[in-house]
Formats: sequence, C-alpha cells, structure tokens
Amino acid sequence: MGEATRTRPSRRARELPPSPIRALAPLAEAAKQRGVRVLHLNIGQPDLPPPPCVLEALAEARRLPLVYAPARGLPETVDAWCAYYRRQGIEIEPAEVLVTSGASEALWLALLATTDPGDEVLVPEPFYAPYQGLLAAAGLRLVPVPPGPSLGPPDPVELRARVTPRTRAILLCSPANPSGAVWDRAALAAAGELARQAGLYLLSDETYREIVFDGPRATSVLELPGLEEHALVIDSLSKRFNVCGLRIGALATRNRAVMAAALELAELRLALPVIDQLAVTGALAAPRPYVDQVVAAYRARRDAVLAALAAVPGVEAHRPGGAFYIVARLPVDDAERFAAWLLAEFEHRGETVMVTPMRSFYATPGAGRDEVRLALVHAPETLARAVEILAAGLAAYPGRNSRTHS
Amino acid sequence: MGEATRTRPSRRARELPPSPIRALAPLAEAAKQRGVRVLHLNIGQPDLPPPPCVLEALAEARRLPLVYAPARGLPETVDAWCAYYRRQGIEIEPAEVLVTSGASEALWLALLATTDPGDEVLVPEPFYAPYQGLLAAAGLRLVPVPPGPSLGPPDPVELRARVTPRTRAILLCSPANPSGAVWDRAALAAAGELARQAGLYLLSDETYREIVFDGPRATSVLELPGLEEHALVIDSLSKRFNVCGLRIGALATRNRAVMAAALELAELRLALPVIDQLAVTGALAAPRPYVDQVVAAYRARRDAVLAALAAVPGVEAHRPGGAFYIVARLPVDDAERFAAWLLAEFEHRGETVMVTPMRSFYATPGAGRDEVRLALVHAPETLARAVEILAAGLAAYPGRNSRTHS
Repeated sequence: MGEATRTRPSRRARELPPSPIRALAPLAEAAKQRGVRVLHLNIGQPDLPPPPCVLEALAEARRLPLVYAPARGLPETVDAWCAYYRRQGIEIEPAEVLVTSGASEALWLALLATTDPGDEVLVPEPFYAPYQGLLAAAGLRLVPVPPGPSLGPPDPVELRARVTPRTRAILLCSPANPSGAVWDRAALAAAGELARQAGLYLLSDETYREIVFDGPRATSVLELPGLEEHALVIDSLSKRFNVCGLRIGALATRNRAVMAAALELAELRLALPVIDQLAVTGALAAPRPYVDQVVAAYRARRDAVLAALAAVPGVEAHRPGGAFYIVARLPVDDAERFAAWLLAEFEHRGETVMVTPMRSFYATPGAGRDEVRLALVHAPETLARAVEILAAGLAAYPGRNSRTHS
Repeated sequence: MGEATRTRPSRRARELPPSPIRALAPLAEAAKQRGVRVLHLNIGQPDLPPPPCVLEALAEARRLPLVYAPARGLPETVDAWCAYYRRQGIEIEPAEVLVTSGASEALWLALLATTDPGDEVLVPEPFYAPYQGLLAAAGLRLVPVPPGPSLGPPDPVELRARVTPRTRAILLCSPANPSGAVWDRAALAAAGELARQAGLYLLSDETYREIVFDGPRATSVLELPGLEEHALVIDSLSKRFNVCGLRIGALATRNRAVMAAALELAELRLALPVIDQLAVTGALAAPRPYVDQVVAAYRARRDAVLAALAAVPGVEAHRPGGAFYIVARLPVDDAERFAAWLLAEFEHRGETVMVTPMRSFYATPGAGRDEVRLALVHAPETLARAVEILAAGLAAYPGRNSRTHS
C-alpha cells in the first residue's frame, strides 16, 4: 500500500452512511448570508425552558468539586433515576442503572455489551437516522423491518421473518423518532415474545416515553414480565426536560451480566461530568407536573400543524401519538432535492424552512423518498408560518409531481 | 444456542482485560468499614484547585442555554484550543481540532477513524492501563513494545521490529502515565520517521504535556515537520487544569480526511455538554501562570517522595520527568498480592495505602509484577506518611523477597 493509501481514514469510518443534513447545512448557511431567515424544522431540539430546579442546581455549579464521578454515575443521580422509574411503576435497583451521556452513549454501550461484529440487529423503519452510523461503527448489520400502518410498529410476522442465526437484537424506539408512533403493550409484548423465543436482546429507546398524547406515558419494556434477561432501556433526559445541552441519559436493564459488561465499557471513558449529573438529579425526583406542561404544548402544536397540513394539496401527514415530530409525504419527486431547493432557490416573504428528508431514516432503498420530518420545536405562530412557507414552496417547486395520495 | 447463552454479554465485552483496581476496590471499602483510613495513591485525580477563571465561568452556568453544541465543539471552545496550541508554537486551524469528552473519547474517536478490526497498534510499555480495553473494544490487537532504560521511550529498533502488514498506528504517551517518561524531540522524530516510512499513524497522548520538570513543556508530535498526515494528538484538560469532573479534551490533527472521519463519528454522539465546554474556554486562553504553580507543586512532591523512597530498603523508584506518578519496584513476590494485603491485613497507626499494581500497564506476560504506581495527588505531609506506611508494610509483608536491586 502506498503512503497516501495508508493514511486514509479507516474502512469503518469511510463506510459510515452519508448524512443528508450535513449536505443541507451549507445551503442553510448560504441562505442566511443572502438575508433569508431560515426556520429550522430540522433539529430535534426543544425550544421550551428546562424545569426551574435544573437552573437552581446549576446556580451551585461553581461550588462543586470537579472530580471524577464513579463510572456508573454519581450515586445520587443513579438513585434519582431509580426513584424516577419507581414512580412510573418500574422497580429497578441502582445496580441495574448506568448514567450515560445521553441516549447515544446508552445505545453505544448497549450495542458493545450485547453484540459482536457481524451480528444483525432488526430495526423497524423509519428509525432514528443515527442508528445507521452507530450500528455501522459497532460492526453490525442493520436489518430494516417495514413499518405497520401509518408508520406504526411492524407486524410481528415481519420481525420474525428476518431472524437469522446472526440476529442478536431488536432495536425499537417508542414513542418513535421520527414517526411519533407509540408501541402499545401488545406490540411490545409480541416483540418481547420473539426476543424470548429466539434469544434476542430487546433494545428499547424510550427517550420520548413521557411525551405522549394519550395517557401519562408509553409502556416501557421494563414493565413487561419475563424479559428480565432480554430488555434494555435506552433513556435520555434531553427531550423530557429540555436539557439537550446537559447530555444526560441512562441505560437500564435487569440483565446483571450485561450491565456489568456495560459498566466495564463505561469505565474506559472514566466518568461523566459532575455538574451535568447533579443538575438533573432534582428534576428526576419530581418531573411529572413539569412534563405535563411540556406534553400540553406539543399536543397543541401537533394538532395545529396537522390541521394546517391537511389544507395543503397533495400533502399526507402521519398523526403522531407521541414525541414532537410530524412525518409528511409531499407531492415531490424527491424530498432531498426539495429540501435543498427550499434553501437554495426559494423564499417566501424573506423566509424559508429547513426540513429533514426522510431517506436516512430508512435502510430500504427508495423508502422515504417523498417524506420529510418536521420538528415541532417552535412557537405555534412560527409553526403556522412554516407550514405556509412549505405550502408556497410546494406550489412553486418545479419537481412537484401530480400523484394524489389516498 | 440455548437461551442462557444467547443473553450472555458480547464476546468483545467478555474479552475485556480484567481491572486489578476493580478487584482492590472492595478491599479498600472493607478497610474503611473497619475504621482504617485509606490513603489513595491509586487514583490519578489531582487534589489542586482549578484555575479561578473556571469557577468564575461556572458561576454563569444557570444563564446558559442548554442546547446542543455543534459536534466539533462550541466555536469559542474550538478557537480557544487553537489559541492555546498557537501559544505553544503549534499552528493549527479550527478545522483540525475536535473537542472531546476527555482524552478517552479523543483516543476512541482517533482509533475508530484510523483503524479497522484486526489491525495492530504498537504501544510502548508501560502504558496507560485503559488503552488495553479501548483497543480491545475497537477490535484491535495491542502489540507491546518494551521500554528503554528507566522505563523511557523504546529503542526505535524495537518499534520497527514489530511492524507487520497489519500495523496501523503507534500509540505513545508523553509525558507518560504511568512512568513519567518524557519523549524528547529525537525519540519522537524516530517514531515519526518510522510512521512515515511504514505509513502508520502516530497517536500521541499528550494529556500531561505541560506537567514536566525540565523546560516549559514536552515536545508535541504536532511540532515535528513532515508528519501532517500521520500525527494525531490526544489531549485533555483534566490534569493540566485540575478539572477531571468537567471531562474536556481534544483531538487535533492536520490530516483533514481523518479529522472529517472523526467528526462524522462524533456526530453520532451529537454533542458535548455546553457548560463544561464554556467553563474551560477562558482557562485555555491564559493557562501558563496557573500551570506553573501546578508544576512547582508536583516537582516538590516528586523530589520529596523520591528522597523518602530512596531510604526504604529494597525499593527502586523511577525518576519521572513529568506527569504526577512514580513507578517503583518493590521487594515483593507480587505487587497485586502486596496491594491487596495492604488493604486487607495491614495498618500502621490506623492508616494504610492503596497503590496501583503495574501489571495492567503491560501486555507482556509477567512484566510489572513487582511494580506499583504511586500518584502524587496529596499534600506533601500526606505523601510522607504514605511512604512511611509503605515502608512499614514492606517490613511486615510475609511475601517480601530478598532480591536487591542494582
């Protein structure tokens, strides 16, 4: 191998899936340079304020000793996670919880602790786009499973049909980013039954668990009996408490051997920051009234945006049961091209919108080609304007197609 | 495979090297339960206060928006790292720096961006113990290289002799944890020359760069000409600024393709916490007078502990040129057994010491068997007492051997 070849990045890095958002970012930047205001419906970052007790805890930040926390997390933060789960009817011990740097690290540790390179992971579509890169970096094969009606949980038969001797896990997200689909107890139980029969792990990303529009929260895999050895919860406080900038999540499982393995892996990164852990400890102890307000805000936004989209010809929006996104099919040739066009060539009264093309939320070739994800992270009047801009864009877009949705 | 086998942790997790400290921790806990005070010379966590400007920045923590930072880091923190390097004579662009969660994440991203499973990495012994686990988790083979005189940089011939077609990188640490050895310019240049000839990456962990006892700082691989495509610096502020609890480090390289790959990998974890990044930005802009005091404190401790150890029969201490550890050979059968005995069966006036056995800092079987690492992270009077306890322990230890060191 010549020198130039030898100092190329690794194969595993070169094979990471491309990010459509990375391609759109410079277009958004250029639009802003031209004086066009860009409404970012592409980022899953809440605009709501964090719980007051988080800010109160941060006021004490300068008095904290800046020392390594235990790899599992500060004991008071681990205990607070347990108290939080207990209030939701989930009995879990501190030895079964590991504080992580958001859901991303929780999933990463879960993957490394449960799977080996070459293993297969079943992932219902559409999925949180970074799963593709995380699985690729861990040397895993992502096996997509087509969604059920209205982008809901897949038919258990479809899951079962994809199990091979290399399958090690099912990775689901409920309430789902991007679709907002909420797995009900029956859907989770069917996946759990398959996991038990086939000896698989059930990795459940419950980042949005409390952001549901019917009932206080989505069912957790930790509530299902008989899955003690199979179920791992990937959790995060970023969305629930509007604290994306703190990066605090958790991995929770009753499989003590897997937890011990995850903890050994976590020891390699030593510790998480102490300030960020302590900032959320109080909020974990008393979240519900706060989260109620958060859910009410998103419910109103969802209803308003769905109503507005229903009036746009050719647009078919999926009704989310939770989380804070809306996936919509658009009457366009290609959603990536449309999203780029909105930024590069369109404006409506000095504004345009940045949306997330859905292609990277699928592994099945061609799937999601005419879909976009809209994040409901703006005030209602901004969202109303965003839909108006989107409608005007669709009317003007040269790649509009004439397909009418059922 | 039966169900019980299927829900075992992954092979990659099961094959992580065992941690001797994990085995000792319960013994230390039990000693404390018995009322024995344990002086922890095993943890590399500074006891010195952080720079005042870090604490001033933290006083503003509650006013910061808790939003996702860019994956590369907050622009002001990236710029501060560049200014910091520039003051050390290293010209580097923001596009060549990535803010990381300590040196651990910097190394992890560097490994994933430059190596593939099955590749070999040359690692001079003794090495920072977690390298073993990090390399194993990344699917890499750690190829140990024996140290030069007094645990210093290896003979370049020894490095070269271990290069195979699977070798992808040399991973060095200077000033070294645990030995305190500082690679001078000639030793770095020799490794750099090998990297160029064989097309290898030179991963340089410079966590302790400014903590050196001769001259203002250790040479960085970024100062050597001709290594633009090869050299990656793994950096951390934890030790330099006594901010272990913030978890801020950096990856720096002029190899733009590798940096792009590392950034793509970093995007999978979204972002680092904003508060912790902003806390160090000011300190990066003006660190030197502060670091001078830190270095003076460690120099005095090093000299005092070396002098005290020289008076203990049978002990041979290596003189560190930097960092804040002392590696000492002890007249014992086995340093792990001795360290356990100190905690489980010994006390001196109500106190004992916890030391780090050196076995896990080597991959060569049997190496380091009679060595321990002592961390100089206590006040001088505590360190003096610790050496006194160690001497009393050695005198009483039943596994003492009669070997005399040259």
